[in-house]
This record gives sequence, structure tokens and C-alpha cells, in this order.
Amino acid sequence: MATDGLTEQLNYIFHPRTVAIIGASNKAGSFGNSFVDGFIRMEFKEIIPVHPTEPEILGLKAYSGVKEIPQDVDLAIILTPPATVAKIMEECTDKGVKGIIIFTAGFGEKDEEGKRLEKEFGQIARKRGSRVIGPNCIGVYSPLSRLLTFPDALIKTLPSEAGTIGCFSQSGSLVDYLTYIACDKGIRFSKVISCGNECDLGSIDFLEYLGDDEDTKVIAGYLEGIKDGKRFYQQAKRISARKPIIIWKTGATESGAKAASSHTGALAGSNQVWNAVFQQTGIISVTSFEEIIDCMLGFYFLPLPKGKRVVIVTAQGGTGVGTADNCIRMGLEMAKISDETLDKLREIIPPMGASISNPMDLGVAAGVLAPHLYGEAVKLIGADENVDMLIVSSSPNPKAINSICEAGKGLGKPLVVSLFKLPEQSQEEYKAFAESGIPAYSDAKRAAFVLSRMAGYAEYQAQVKEKE
Amino acid sequence: MATDGLTEQLNYIFHPRTVAIIGASNKAGSFGNSFVDGFIRMEFKEIIPVHPTEPEILGLKAYSGVKEIPQDVDLAIILTPPATVAKIMEECTDKGVKGIIIFTAGFGEKDEEGKRLEKEFGQIARKRGSRVIGPNCIGVYSPLSRLLTFPDALIKTLPSEAGTIGCFSQSGSLVDYLTYIACDKGIRFSKVISCGNECDLGSIDFLEYLGDDEDTKVIAGYLEGIKDGKRFYQQAKRISARKPIIIWKTGATESGAKAASSHTGALAGSNQVWNAVFQQTGIISVTSFEEIIDCMLGFYFLPLPKGKRVVIVTAQGGTGVGTADNCIRMGLEMAKISDETLDKLREIIPPMGASISNPMDLGVAAGVLAPHLYGEAVKLIGADENVDMLIVSSSPNPKAINSICEAGKGLGKPLVVSLFKLPEQSQEEYKAFAESGIPAYSDAKRAAFVLSRMAGYAEYQAQVKEKE
Repeated sequence: MATDGLTEQLNYIFHPRTVAIIGASNKAGSFGNSFVDGFIRMEFKEIIPVHPTEPEILGLKAYSGVKEIPQDVDLAIILTPPATVAKIMEECTDKGVKGIIIFTAGFGEKDEEGKRLEKEFGQIARKRGSRVIGPNCIGVYSPLSRLLTFPDALIKTLPSEAGTIGCFSQSGSLVDYLTYIACDKGIRFSKVISCGNECDLGSIDFLEYLGDDEDTKVIAGYLEGIKDGKRFYQQAKRISARKPIIIWKTGATESGAKAASSHTGALAGSNQVWNAVFQQTGIISVTSFEEIIDCMLGFYFLPLPKGKRVVIVTAQGGTGVGTADNCIRMGLEMAKISDETLDKLREIIPPMGASISNPMDLGVAAGVLAPHLYGEAVKLIGADENVDMLIVSSSPNPKAINSICEAGKGLGKPLVVSLFKLPEQSQEEYKAFAESGIPAYSDAKRAAFVLSRMAGYAEYQAQVKEKE
Repeated sequence: MATDGLTEQLNYIFHPRTVAIIGASNKAGSFGNSFVDGFIRMEFKEIIPVHPTEPEILGLKAYSGVKEIPQDVDLAIILTPPATVAKIMEECTDKGVKGIIIFTAGFGEKDEEGKRLEKEFGQIARKRGSRVIGPNCIGVYSPLSRLLTFPDALIKTLPSEAGTIGCFSQSGSLVDYLTYIACDKGIRFSKVISCGNECDLGSIDFLEYLGDDEDTKVIAGYLEGIKDGKRFYQQAKRISARKPIIIWKTGATESGAKAASSHTGALAGSNQVWNAVFQQTGIISVTSFEEIIDCMLGFYFLPLPKGKRVVIVTAQGGTGVGTADNCIRMGLEMAKISDETLDKLREIIPPMGASISNPMDLGVAAGVLAPHLYGEAVKLIGADENVDMLIVSSSPNPKAINSICEAGKGLGKPLVVSLFKLPEQSQEEYKAFAESGIPAYSDAKRAAFVLSRMAGYAEYQAQVKEKE
């Protein structure tokens, strides 16, 4: 069940008509200056800079305080020093500002007094009808509304097109980096949120909001700890039946970073609890930056597999065998390709060095003379009813890549590629796949991992539907 | 115990004075032509082309058959079609050629008759004092002797400097690729061997040879199956006490690739046996291409850790916590940095966003204003007696990178870096680390993995020494 009014309240934050920037500045190079500049470059319409004395900031009319702003303010962003925040918060709630993002750090993460203060911010705001993100956060990215508050992004600017992944994170620097890398790989976001100290709104609120958000089809989150385990469990279970939720949960215990240095027993215990939560709620669990990005790529671009039967296609025998091992270790099954398909494959693949089975070795020909064999094989195998998904470990030959991209069109099954070219060497080859919506990794183990997570989630979803 | 005469026999193959190339050709673009050309470009001294009619190949005097060659032949390489191999093998053994590499494919991997034939090659050769690699292999790379027979390498040419990793592989295309990637990352090899169908010499012989080879300090191998489990176990155990052996074992069962498609139970059983072997022999087990390369980098460049206590240094809190989790999961311990070191760190690290503990967050300053803090922290922490090894998750800021490379000099402890820059984006940053002998990965989980393998091996080695 969704929390009453939450969607409406958060819509003011993610789709604001007016944004007041408190701490805007004309001083070139200052944070308050580049921040306003970022908004202008994102072509956000109603920017209202607030500065005690300046009448104009970067050509926009400025106001000396929140209460001087004539129009309604949907979202206020606070960039001012810690000592000023309490008073500004009061002014914002007085004015009836719907959403507030407190960038300013130096509260709960600093000392007990900071904890007390930020708790107060949250309580007062909620009581007076405002909702708060932060403090100590980098805000939100909501491309549909041309809203982008990440510090790095203000300089580099993220894409203004929206996509269907919603993301929340309890680490600001991590989500900033994650958003860039994901966009670089072709992913586009519905909303991204840096949660900060969660004095009011927290990860579970964002999970719930994204769960109900029609623009969001896949959810990814970085979590260190949560405040209300029961609510998290219930919301995750409710949402996961319809949308995949990918979670990187770190921190050995609820107390997060510090506990990580405690003894292994504590970690194991806590891991057990979290693993149980993941299993029962269908959450897709990952444990590294690469894994979360890899899974985001898979769930974003590909349809869910109908079963667990995978075919591995390569022209490097060793990798085929090693990938088969990894697929089986990760819970996938090696598909039994139908005799009909095998016969068709035998017709087109020269026998030299080839092995027409699963894993499939396309042999010497695919290496140099006939790289299009990769695509031909994908087409034939993809059409086989005994096959749920494919991993292709390809050479970086452009003809091989093109043939795979071509074969991937309208396949209707997950197709993941690993390239015999470590990414350190070049990214050209990866771009072609990104443009075709085919996740491509430098190691086939990563491909196997993503497919295993997708098959696992598909299974969970099917089980839920069966019960309903 | 080492096998009698094996080192002497294999020395003829890895350090031949004369090499006869049977199947050499003047036809531009042919394999036999580019093969001889490769030898010339590697500046190998005594190349003897063999061709039925040509008096000269690429300017070198050619002979019409092996028996016409006046001088002794240490190594003969056979590139001719399958039907010709039996007769050439006879001529080679008649002549007393010490080592023979059969490139030609189409024997044991093709059919039963091929299996019978290659078995005969092996038996006859051994009886007459010749040792054979292959058939169906890509030969060897022995830079100390300027010997390089890999097909791709003949075009691209691998470095002629030697290093201290010895490598053998039951997949030719895999070892070809592995050697390139490793060299690109700064690794240099003592010897690399593509085992082929192992009609005579096999993986265990190469393991044993590299174990006794003074030029080899680290051994890496790709294995699909072995013929003599007991001998492998004994040799691995004997060698592993002195040199690390990194093995990527694939293939669900002894029968290799085909069995990979059988049911999971079979895989589990076989995995159990292999895992027991790995544990009892101290072999470092890996399960993917990235993992074998990553571990090769660690064992090649770094000293072994004295214990399991790791410190994580970063300026991105989330990654620090996540890496701590992964370190603990992989059997490492979070080091307790001494109070003295912590005090020194507090003196240099500005408090904004910083956390002076383990994992250590260098805070906002390290991000932009004071990237040299990375190096300063590494120096101080590296000098702490409570610390066995370090993982630094660094920004790609060149000043940060330089400071870490500088601090790594003479540290005497393993230092591994992960960069907040996925390698797809650029390789410049990785080069600096490669030149400094600091393994650098795109994900901190890979760093944790490598250190866990190094700490595990160090522990094994210490246990063996204790017993002795």
C-alpha cells in the first residue's frame, strides 16, 4: 500500500514549476554562482535566485529573502552555511514552500547537536506541509522537468532526455558518479535522488515514490542503512512484484560505515538478515559498482527472460567453457539447442575449429574470414524455442559487432555481449552496442551475472503472479 | 620431486639454438610466410625454413626436407597439412630433433582416428628422445630466446623483454589474448605455452618445468582437464610452497566443454574436488578472464602481505563502506590503524566530509583542492605496523594519481588502486599506475579480490614453512 499524499508531495520536488535558489551568487567560480548557471544551461524556466543584497544574479531577478518572493515556490534549494539554515527553513515553511532540498552539510554527520537540529527541521517542515531532502546531499536529477542539482553536473551537464530508471542513493558522490557512468553507457533516468541525512524524506519514501511513478520502470538504489525495516520490506515486496529493484546494500550493520570495521560475525549476521530480505522481496542484490551498473544496463535495455536456459556463442573455446561454468554456478541452465537449429548452424559454420553445441565455438572462420557468423548464429539460436537468452563472447572485429547488433533487433530475448578487448584499450566497440541497446561487458562472467539476476527476478515475478 | 631430465628436454624447446620451420612459404600473406617473417622480426638467429622446392624463403636458405638440414635442429615447428604430419614427425625423430611443436590441427579434437594418430606421434617421439607440444596449438613465447610463435603475435609482435610470469594454457586463442592484455598492463613473461592436444608434453609437464625454472617467479595457467590427477596434485603442492600458482580451471568435468552442458550436480561434484585440490595445494583459484589478469598483476608487481589487515582509503564514502564489506566477505580483516598514525592523519586532512578511520574518507578537500592527500595518507598508513596492505579508491585527478604512485615507491606492502573512472572512458590514468607497478582496476571489488587471494596464498606459504 502506498503512503497517503506521498506522490503528490514529491511531485512538487521532482516536477517543480518554480525553484528558489537560496545562496545564489554573482561571484564567478563560487558554488552559488555555478549552481544558478547550471539551472540556466539546463533551460529550467522559473529560477528565483535569493541573495541578501544583489538585485540580479546572472541576469535573473533576485530577492533578498524567501518571504520577498511574490509567486508560489514549489522547491527551495538551500546552499547557505549551517548557521543560517534554521532561519531559512522557518522562512520557507512560513511561505508554504512545498519541497526543500538542504545541500548544506555539517549537521547529523558532524555531531549530536547537528542530529538534534536536523531532526527539528524535519519535524517542523512536515507539520507545516513542507517535505525535505537532506541536509548533506546533492539533491535531485529529474530530466523530464529539466531539474538537475548535482554539483559536477552543473559543470558537465547530464542529458536532458529522460529514461525509465529511477535511482536513489545514501552516498552523494557515489550517485553523482553512477549517474554519469550510466548515461555514458546509454541509460537514461526518470529521477535520481541523493538522500543525504534523511531528516525528513528517506530512502524508503523514494523507493515508494518510484514504485508508483509511471515514468519509472526499473529502480536502482545504494543503501547503507534504513530506519524502518518493516516498511522497507513491505514496500519492496509490493513494488518488486511489478518493477525490478536493484540494491547495492553496504555497511556491515545498520550503523553503517563504522561497523564495517567490527568483527566478521556481526557482518555475517547482518548479511543473513539482508539476504533473507532480498530473497523474500525479490530485490536484485549487487555488491559492487560494476555490478550495479551492469545490472542496470541489463534490466534497462532487455526484456526479462522467460526461463533460465542460456546459450553461449563464441569463437574462443576456453571462454565458452569458462562461461558455461559461471552460468551454472549462478543458477542458469545450459539450453539444449533443438536438432533443427543445430542442422541449420552446421550448414553455415565451417567445421575448422568449430563446435556446434552449447557452448558454441564458431571456430576459425568467425575469427577472420567470416565474422558475420556471429550475427547469423544469434539469429538462428534466438529463434529456437528451447532458448531463453544468449551470451555472445565476440572478437572486436567491426563486422562481427555489426552483425550482432543487427541480429539483436527484434530478438525478443535477452542478448548480452562480452568483448575480447579489455575496455582499457578502446571504447569504440562498446559504443556500437550501447547504441543498439545490447549490454556489452569486458568479461563474460559479468554477462553471466547479469543474466542470472534477470532470470532470478523473472522467476520471482512469475511466482508472485501465480499466487495472485 | 621433479621428473628426471624434463628441464633439460624442455630447455631445448624454450631456448633453442636452431629452429626449423616446416611449411615455410614465399607466398605473401600465407601463414607459412608471415610465420617466417615473424621470426625474422623477432631477430631470432638461426631460422631454417623447410620447403619442398624453394631454395630460399624471405632471403633465408631453405631446405627441401628435415633430413637435408646439415646442422643439429633443437626445435622443429610443423605447419603443414594433417596428412603430411606423420611423415615429417618420422623425419624429425630420425634426425634427432630435440623438440617439436605441431601447429597443425585436425587430430584428436576431430575424430577417433586423429586421437590414435596423435597418441602414436607422442609415443614414437618420446621413445626416440624427442619431446612434442601439440598438435592443434599455437606454440610458445620465450622472450629470453626471442622465440615467439603465436599467430597474432607474428603480426603485432609482443615485447622482446622477459619478465617473471610463466604461463600455460589448454586454449590457444585464450592464451594469445591473455598474453597481449597482460603485456599491455605492464606484465612481462618468462615463458608462455599453448598446450594443444597434449599428445606428449602436457599442462603438468609445463607446471613442473616452470616450477623449477629460475626465470619464473609466478605461474598462471588455464586448464580444462588433466590426465594425471595425482601427479598434478603432487607437483602443485611441491611448487606452490615456493611460487604462487594461479589457475583458471574451467569445464564442469574432466571431459571438458561438452560436460559443461550436463546437469548441475555433476558440476558441483567436480567443483568440490577441484576446490579441495586448490585448498590443499595452495593454488590461487580464479573463475574469469578479468580475475586471472587481475591476480597476475597483483602477484607480479607486489610483495606478499604479511597478514590480512587491510586499510581502505577513498574520498567517496559509499565506495569505502562497500569495499570494507567485500574485503570482509573475502576473508580480509579491517586493520586497526594506530592512534599515532590517526593523529598524524588528522593534522593533514581537513575535516569537511572526512572520516579518519578505516575505511578512511579523505573528504571534500581530496576531491578538488588537495588531491595530494591521497599520497600523503598512503605514506602515513603504509608506515603503520598494524597495516598489512592498502586499497586506494581514487579520483582520476592526475595529481591524486601522481601522489599515489610516488607514495607507492618502496612501500614494502601491497598497494592496489581502484579508479573512479570506468576504463571504457580512458586508459591514460591506468598507464601511470602500470608504469609504477601498482595494479589498478575499475572496481574496488576487484582490488579486494586480488588482495584476498594474495593474503590467502601468503598464509598457505607460511603454514608450509612452519611444518618444514
